[in-house]
Amino acid sequence: MNQDYIKSNEWSIIEEGFNAERVKSSESLFSIGNGAMGQRANFEETYTGDTFQGSYIAGVYYPDKTRVGWWKNGYPEYFAKVLNAPNWIGINVKVNDEQVDLNTCSKITEFRRELNMKEGWLSRTFKATLQNGIEISVEAKRFLSLELDEVGAIKYTITPLNSNATISFEPYLDSGITNEDTNWDAKFWNTLNVSTEGNQAFIEAHTMKTEFHTCTFMESQLELNGKQLSIQPEVVKSEKKVSFNYTAEVKEKESYTIFKFAGYTADRNHDKSELVLAAKSVLIKATSLGFNDLLELQKNSWAKIWETADITISGDVKAQQGIRFNIFQLNQTYLGTDPLLNIGPKGFTGEKYGGSTYWDTEAYCIPFYMATKDEKVARNLLEYRYHHLDRAIENAEKLGFTNGAALYPMVTMNGEECHNEWEITFEEIHRNGAIAFAIYNYFRYTGDYSYIPEKGLEVLIGIARFWQQRATFSTAKDKYVILGVTGPNEYENNVNNNWYTNYTAKWCIEYALESIAKVAKDYAKDYERILEKTQITNEELAAWKKVAENMYFPYSEKHDVFLQQDGFLDKELVSVADLDKSQRPINQKWSWDRILRSPYIKQADILQGFYFFEDHFSKEQLEKHFDFYEPFTVHESSLSPCVHSIQAAKLDRMDQAYEFYLRTSRLDLDDYNKEVEEGLHITSMAGTWMSIVEGFGGMRIKENKLSFEPKIPKQWDGYSFKVNFRNQILKVSVNHEKTEFELEGTEELEVLFESKSIKISPNSMITV
Amino acid sequence: MNQDYIKSNEWSIIEEGFNAERVKSSESLFSIGNGAMGQRANFEETYTGDTFQGSYIAGVYYPDKTRVGWWKNGYPEYFAKVLNAPNWIGINVKVNDEQVDLNTCSKITEFRRELNMKEGWLSRTFKATLQNGIEISVEAKRFLSLELDEVGAIKYTITPLNSNATISFEPYLDSGITNEDTNWDAKFWNTLNVSTEGNQAFIEAHTMKTEFHTCTFMESQLELNGKQLSIQPEVVKSEKKVSFNYTAEVKEKESYTIFKFAGYTADRNHDKSELVLAAKSVLIKATSLGFNDLLELQKNSWAKIWETADITISGDVKAQQGIRFNIFQLNQTYLGTDPLLNIGPKGFTGEKYGGSTYWDTEAYCIPFYMATKDEKVARNLLEYRYHHLDRAIENAEKLGFTNGAALYPMVTMNGEECHNEWEITFEEIHRNGAIAFAIYNYFRYTGDYSYIPEKGLEVLIGIARFWQQRATFSTAKDKYVILGVTGPNEYENNVNNNWYTNYTAKWCIEYALESIAKVAKDYAKDYERILEKTQITNEELAAWKKVAENMYFPYSEKHDVFLQQDGFLDKELVSVADLDKSQRPINQKWSWDRILRSPYIKQADILQGFYFFEDHFSKEQLEKHFDFYEPFTVHESSLSPCVHSIQAAKLDRMDQAYEFYLRTSRLDLDDYNKEVEEGLHITSMAGTWMSIVEGFGGMRIKENKLSFEPKIPKQWDGYSFKVNFRNQILKVSVNHEKTEFELEGTEELEVLFESKSIKISPNSMITV
Repeated sequence: MNQDYIKSNEWSIIEEGFNAERVKSSESLFSIGNGAMGQRANFEETYTGDTFQGSYIAGVYYPDKTRVGWWKNGYPEYFAKVLNAPNWIGINVKVNDEQVDLNTCSKITEFRRELNMKEGWLSRTFKATLQNGIEISVEAKRFLSLELDEVGAIKYTITPLNSNATISFEPYLDSGITNEDTNWDAKFWNTLNVSTEGNQAFIEAHTMKTEFHTCTFMESQLELNGKQLSIQPEVVKSEKKVSFNYTAEVKEKESYTIFKFAGYTADRNHDKSELVLAAKSVLIKATSLGFNDLLELQKNSWAKIWETADITISGDVKAQQGIRFNIFQLNQTYLGTDPLLNIGPKGFTGEKYGGSTYWDTEAYCIPFYMATKDEKVARNLLEYRYHHLDRAIENAEKLGFTNGAALYPMVTMNGEECHNEWEITFEEIHRNGAIAFAIYNYFRYTGDYSYIPEKGLEVLIGIARFWQQRATFSTAKDKYVILGVTGPNEYENNVNNNWYTNYTAKWCIEYALESIAKVAKDYAKDYERILEKTQITNEELAAWKKVAENMYFPYSEKHDVFLQQDGFLDKELVSVADLDKSQRPINQKWSWDRILRSPYIKQADILQGFYFFEDHFSKEQLEKHFDFYEPFTVHESSLSPCVHSIQAAKLDRMDQAYEFYLRTSRLDLDDYNKEVEEGLHITSMAGTWMSIVEGFGGMRIKENKLSFEPKIPKQWDGYSFKVNFRNQILKVSVNHEKTEFELEGTEELEVLFESKSIKISPNSMITV
Repeated sequence: MNQDYIKSNEWSIIEEGFNAERVKSSESLFSIGNGAMGQRANFEETYTGDTFQGSYIAGVYYPDKTRVGWWKNGYPEYFAKVLNAPNWIGINVKVNDEQVDLNTCSKITEFRRELNMKEGWLSRTFKATLQNGIEISVEAKRFLSLELDEVGAIKYTITPLNSNATISFEPYLDSGITNEDTNWDAKFWNTLNVSTEGNQAFIEAHTMKTEFHTCTFMESQLELNGKQLSIQPEVVKSEKKVSFNYTAEVKEKESYTIFKFAGYTADRNHDKSELVLAAKSVLIKATSLGFNDLLELQKNSWAKIWETADITISGDVKAQQGIRFNIFQLNQTYLGTDPLLNIGPKGFTGEKYGGSTYWDTEAYCIPFYMATKDEKVARNLLEYRYHHLDRAIENAEKLGFTNGAALYPMVTMNGEECHNEWEITFEEIHRNGAIAFAIYNYFRYTGDYSYIPEKGLEVLIGIARFWQQRATFSTAKDKYVILGVTGPNEYENNVNNNWYTNYTAKWCIEYALESIAKVAKDYAKDYERILEKTQITNEELAAWKKVAENMYFPYSEKHDVFLQQDGFLDKELVSVADLDKSQRPINQKWSWDRILRSPYIKQADILQGFYFFEDHFSKEQLEKHFDFYEPFTVHESSLSPCVHSIQAAKLDRMDQAYEFYLRTSRLDLDDYNKEVEEGLHITSMAGTWMSIVEGFGGMRIKENKLSFEPKIPKQWDGYSFKVNFRNQILKVSVNHEKTEFELEGTEELEVLFESKSIKISPNSMITV
């Protein structure tokens, strides 16, 4: 770990003491979101120190022109950039004409932040001595409403402690914002109109090119010493900014409070001509409830989420805090209600990675959402890819594939590829495998086959076609090979026969063939439609089969393991343990070529395949591969520790599993990868959930039933989680002596416990 | 070939008829230069059609910030950009107030351009009917003086053919120029001062960041109907431009002529405060000579160059034109007098590739300059790298190498790497081999060993150190391997054990060891200095040796050939002949990943190694490798056909050798690669020279003597070339019956002819 300033607490993230060097990290860690928007934990008042400003609206992006030093044929023209949206949290605070600014005041004490995950709010308190000698205490609390997801609320109270003072609040809206990652001074927002009405202000602006129209709005209420105050504000308007000045004479030790209700309305949900109207409507709802009632609703909404999603861990506060942080952030990012949205790797906490959708969604997030929410949420995520099938076919055509072969983009917002590194964009094609696997996984978990004949099969066909065309026949090997790929381990590029890629390719073809057969047999009408649409022929299916049956897998007799790729054994196989610690993380210390020719693995690759296709391999095989590859794995991808935690638990290596669990669950809290200031690793948080439920809980689907083989790290007294399995909520509690199952609802549920069948009656508990 | 509009002519490049679509191609083909500056053949008068403006000053570049989509550790911060310099050729011409503009006039006839290579000038004539109905005839001639290499001269004559007319010439200077390759609207020039004095004008400007100061200057003289004319010009000055207006009433069929003398002075050669003064001084020299006398000097200077450098071919005008075009352009680009300059791949004919120095210099250009100029020129080119040794060591350190290992940059201006594609910058490391080979080649050809103890050995040691560290031991192969490289064939990236790279690595180490031993023995004092400076130890030398002796070379028993890289045989080995023609050139038609996994070879790779190390392999081995690899070679690099021509000639495949010869010599004239409009392929032109002298002439150095095994394509009646061998000029003439040797000077020369010794007396001819 690289930091440990976050206080251990079961339900809250807490920072005590002000340290300017931690500001950007904390801005990430204390981020808040409500699925529709989100923001970094920037200060409301002026801060002239080093900061990374970020406020993001779901689905609002900018297609930035691809600018590379050296163009490669096939690059997409545009790169989707997550856009920093107009600032609505800002409140400049002046005390006797001095700006309150933690960067310039002469003393700061009792600085404390809290992100209360149980109730969904962020608070910040501090005392400061200004340069003019006035001591103040400040309390700020804010949240983004889950109930009214277009609005957020801030309560900001200041108290002069050693004298009377003239204090002014200047709440403002500002559309003159920029992106951190802008190399080229481009402007992404075009401000159309800045207007005010009483205590309300509105900025209408749209993004360039994509023309997403938004209205950023605010309304403020004031209280002096707990009493409502009516001040006629001074209004200052400029081209891209509007502020209100509320000045009051505040007596020593009396408090002055502003409530700011603000947020965005956007043309995703409203006619673009009615955004101000919509803003007024949401402001009426919010202000008539008031800060406290809105906060009560917030607590209720979060209580509902935690009701199914919570995981408890007793005897290990850090572990408990870690898992709740992960579950909390996932729910802040994506609530599953909008089939056009997806889960960005940084959620609403930073700009990095652009785009919103990676294979992370299928490989890591879907299991979490399937088990903690209604199955419709997972189906929405599958349909997102179905809607993009035509574009995946276009994407494959750009790379020379034909006949409806589909290559899903590595990174996307609207189905178009928007990444531009040839070794990733063109070669990290295993993403297609995760998309097919999610279809299988959805059916396996939910039992809902209807998705396959209705939509999924077309996706499976496009993907199978791609693999059949992408594999080529090697005369030398007398097998089909897949040349020039990047596997999940992105520390090897343009390699031949990445085992994971070859294996998923074979599986995708076989699963498509199996699904075609089943749909042809059981869903004749759907089959007819699909046949007409895809024009698959028996000759084509025979060609697929030939590739799947004759796929090459690199293998070492000496080590009795599959090789990650053809050339792996030629590397200098020095384990991570023997690597000088000063050289890590290698992605910050080493040049790219050195990384590529090293044996070091960024994230699970063959072991990722063993995770997806667990039943295809024996435990002995898993053990051999784990022992061979894990020692070379640097886990510099956030997606690595969770899979290793699950595999280590399966191999009964509980200490290692626990270590990986801590690393995945506290990746950001403890800043393992030295980059938390850029934002949080949202998608890997679903992997943390998997590492408890599937790793320690040993949950699988076997024989169409939930199956458990629970284990528990020795550091814990016990843990519990709930899963929604086919509309039944099952709670599983594990301690060192026993496992308890508790079922909600009305119907009996049969589960497997260490391969033995157990029947659980509703509203009762079974202890084993 | 993709175009054939250039008229066949032994000494000139000629275009007849105006075609707007050819303008950019012709701007490249008709480029002129004098080693110190050069320019594309842009029109003097306004041209509103599609054009690519370019005027370049040797050594003037801009370090453009590296901007890539995704940064890789190790990338250089800057990329050296060849800069379009202020325009001094411009002369706006108005006839009765209408701009003469070939893009807008209503009719164009008798358009003709000629680049006279024998005398070093460019001319253009045409007749046009303007929109106002006036018919004009225009004759323009210009050249860049070899005698006064800061100045160029233009003679521009216009004649109204069907009426009297008011005609104005507006010669101008313009520093408000841009680069074609500017994605980011960056400005590269800062204009300091625009001034005039009588008929002279000056623009002082400097490049941003690099602060190269220049003065662009002009002076004009006028003639009406052959009589000198004194007009007080109207002067128009703005921030970055200055023009003079010379208006005259010109009678029908009378001619109006402007002589414009213009060019650059730069702080490479003058104090930056004295650039205007220097400009005045060169203007006095030029104008006092006048256009015609300056042109006479130009003819004399070119006659001197041709005296040694010319190659004659009889019976094949296209072949003759091709080789002269190549020799002419090489001499326009680099004359070898300045050890700080080098040979850019596009010379002064375009912006592409940035930087000035690639491995092209060592691999292709040095043999040409060694044989056609004084040996000092080649030594200057070697010293250029010696001066950059410290930076090559820094470059290697950036990539993690230690102990004085040197990796020369892929592309450079000042010794620093300035390229930014990881697969090239970090991996195309074979360039180090060419740099060591050039040292060996220089000694082999000139017999001057002094360079090695004085300077070369330090370079050889740095390079050997690099190879020893870059090779790693493969336990699986029980050999040293070199992983993750790009060979000369850039259509494979990040491959393992590229044969060419491994072979040159081994050779470099062995040659360094051999040189150390020789210097230690014969140059004790130098050795002491080198020992102290490099701190080489016997242990280190033993480590080098171990790597060289145990280097791995991929080999196919089945085909009995070395493999270009470990994975070559896994590719679908469909020959170029069986590849659909519509798919070519693949670098324009295919996505990058598809190219990489194809078997298609961009340029000689193993065959390049067989060229460098010819004596290490039998003719049978060459034949096998030629037959195996050439069928997969698409020759999409300009550096490919020349080596293949030489190898084909060696294998007595004269038809193929001739075809490759035409392709290399007329690569640009016939636009084989569909990109001539971007500029000419200067460095490969030296390869064309090699394909005659070494390919057809069979010239080698054997037993410390010149050796010849002449052949002649059946399409030719005869050919001749001259070489400067150790300060003796030998002329070799070959026809189908005999070979004649003619020696200048005073001393006898012993050469080998088809392995037999022949002694040639000075000033006599020997026929064999």
